[in-house]
Amino acid sequence: MFENTNSTEIADLGEFGLINHLTQHINLNSPHTLKGVGDDAAVADAKEKKILISTDLLLEGIHFDLAFTPLKHLGYKAIQVNLSDIYAMNGLATQVTVSLGFSSKFPLEAIEELYSGMLLACEKYNIDLIGGDTTSSKQGLVISVTSIGYANEVDITYRDGAQEGDLLCVSGDLGGAYVGLQLLEREKQVFLTNPNIQPDLEGNDYIIERQLKPEARLDIVDLLKKMGIKPTSMIDVSDGLASEILHITKQSKKGCKLYEEKIPIDPQTTEMAREFGLDPTVCALNGGEDYELLFTIKQADYDRLKHDVDITVIGYITEESAGNYLITKAGNVHELKAQGWNAFKDNFGSSPYCVDK
Amino acid sequence: MFENTNSTEIADLGEFGLINHLTQHINLNSPHTLKGVGDDAAVADAKEKKILISTDLLLEGIHFDLAFTPLKHLGYKAIQVNLSDIYAMNGLATQVTVSLGFSSKFPLEAIEELYSGMLLACEKYNIDLIGGDTTSSKQGLVISVTSIGYANEVDITYRDGAQEGDLLCVSGDLGGAYVGLQLLEREKQVFLTNPNIQPDLEGNDYIIERQLKPEARLDIVDLLKKMGIKPTSMIDVSDGLASEILHITKQSKKGCKLYEEKIPIDPQTTEMAREFGLDPTVCALNGGEDYELLFTIKQADYDRLKHDVDITVIGYITEESAGNYLITKAGNVHELKAQGWNAFKDNFGSSPYCVDK
Repeated sequence: MFENTNSTEIADLGEFGLINHLTQHINLNSPHTLKGVGDDAAVADAKEKKILISTDLLLEGIHFDLAFTPLKHLGYKAIQVNLSDIYAMNGLATQVTVSLGFSSKFPLEAIEELYSGMLLACEKYNIDLIGGDTTSSKQGLVISVTSIGYANEVDITYRDGAQEGDLLCVSGDLGGAYVGLQLLEREKQVFLTNPNIQPDLEGNDYIIERQLKPEARLDIVDLLKKMGIKPTSMIDVSDGLASEILHITKQSKKGCKLYEEKIPIDPQTTEMAREFGLDPTVCALNGGEDYELLFTIKQADYDRLKHDVDITVIGYITEESAGNYLITKAGNVHELKAQGWNAFKDNFGSSPYCVDK
Repeated sequence: MFENTNSTEIADLGEFGLINHLTQHINLNSPHTLKGVGDDAAVADAKEKKILISTDLLLEGIHFDLAFTPLKHLGYKAIQVNLSDIYAMNGLATQVTVSLGFSSKFPLEAIEELYSGMLLACEKYNIDLIGGDTTSSKQGLVISVTSIGYANEVDITYRDGAQEGDLLCVSGDLGGAYVGLQLLEREKQVFLTNPNIQPDLEGNDYIIERQLKPEARLDIVDLLKKMGIKPTSMIDVSDGLASEILHITKQSKKGCKLYEEKIPIDPQTTEMAREFGLDPTVCALNGGEDYELLFTIKQADYDRLKHDVDITVIGYITEESAGNYLITKAGNVHELKAQGWNAFKDNFGSSPYCVDK
């Protein structure tokens, strides 16, 4: 069936390249559609409020490893990563649908655990689970989540609104989820070698939680609203800071200066990264799965958020021709490149294809 | 991780039982939500129009066999089966999101073929593909589709509105998709035994198309609207006629009489069923995947549709205590039972968990 003499390797295109390729001929026809492929979530016209829709597919062996991921945490995370896309539009997530595929040999209690994590996330974030699908799978656990959210049209924040001079801001801290994953992978290997050795995770709660139980930043969306700040652009950090910044600058047709010394990194992340011989900054730039919000604001709004410890200004937007640059702590200037996960190259990670075109 | 001394076999519960079990504690909290788990599609309040949302997960080896399913057909079908749920609410499907998981060794051309079928379906039914997700899969091809549709609140047709005396109607004909699948499976086995033998599909175009390229019945929704008929209840036939009738009668708290002689079955379906030693009526009752619309109408509306050859009255609604019965051609009376696919028992098929509770 796949005989084709002009076979193209998907790995050669990369995920975004593939998506660009696939979506280039899509036309939007319905008056209900305001924004299709091209951002964190699609926007549909429900007249009074606009509808935000986002979907994620999570596959065992690709997005999660059941050897070290408790099912309840997995359920919680599956919802969070999807809500994060709605918040990144400056919207309020309201509903999810959840589709699950799993082996017919999975005990009911396992699915209950998974589900309980999902319902916990829903309860905490005031989300209704309104539908879904379940099926058996010959292929490991499959989770597909679709989130629906609402926002007033004027409040919706796209990736393409950054203006020259805007400040580049990020919530929380970065790199922790990636370093937490390295730690979990290491302890799994230790366990496989000698099952009598208990995992050595002590003192690393924070980075493990960043990996296993991320929290979508609804609080930041609320905070910005309370401060009277509408970001000029926004995206969630799922593939690594570098990749997300480049989404914003590319779609906004701008450049940026990013300051390494400003990138917020937790001490636990720094310490564990060094233990693995990794540069903490590289973990923040390319690690992914932090689910923080990256956004740009007008300089005039700076005074309103400068005292908030959970938001850090990490750089600023320049004109497009100035390019995208990282200024290192040593004062060196490097071109910023996206080296985030490529699901088709290293079998790890993925991102919704609301991406740059 | 799955250690549990009280392990329950999911096969024992069955798919619907499992879903009932999982969803029994779900509360709906948002004022945006009008209808959560429990029908063909969820209904959200978008103020002027109501939003209809439905989602399906299709897995290789469970829902489709790439040995005899052309990828373009598969893409087309993946969209159709999902739109069918929106039409079954008497709504107009408008957008879809599509998530795909596939091996990194899949050639690009294969994904293009799949996608081209999806886009063809979208184009034909005026659907915008507004988002999605792609990822690699170690587990065969994974397809998740979410459809969003719109309807005026007064037009939405639930499963629970059937009234005593209403006529039970179905569009098109039944059992063809199931018999078509049997034929494709047989020819696959023949091919595996001797690859030099060409598949013998001649003269069976109709049933093969019923399996590989179903069409969601938007035309029936339009027709009913034109006739000025609002069904009192409606569902699409994805799991077999018997199962769907019982969804309607259970949720409507009614019973029914179904007449075997009235069940519309194409001659090609009958012929091929007999070749396989199958009872064509059983194929219609339990085969599934026909994606026709099953609905109830007031007797007063009968005159308006009695001349339409694509809609057949197959029985009527009774009071609940009268039970659900099939009257055979020989005049025997059998209790109607759902023996549709159980994805967890036979590794085949699945249905959205907008199901009876």
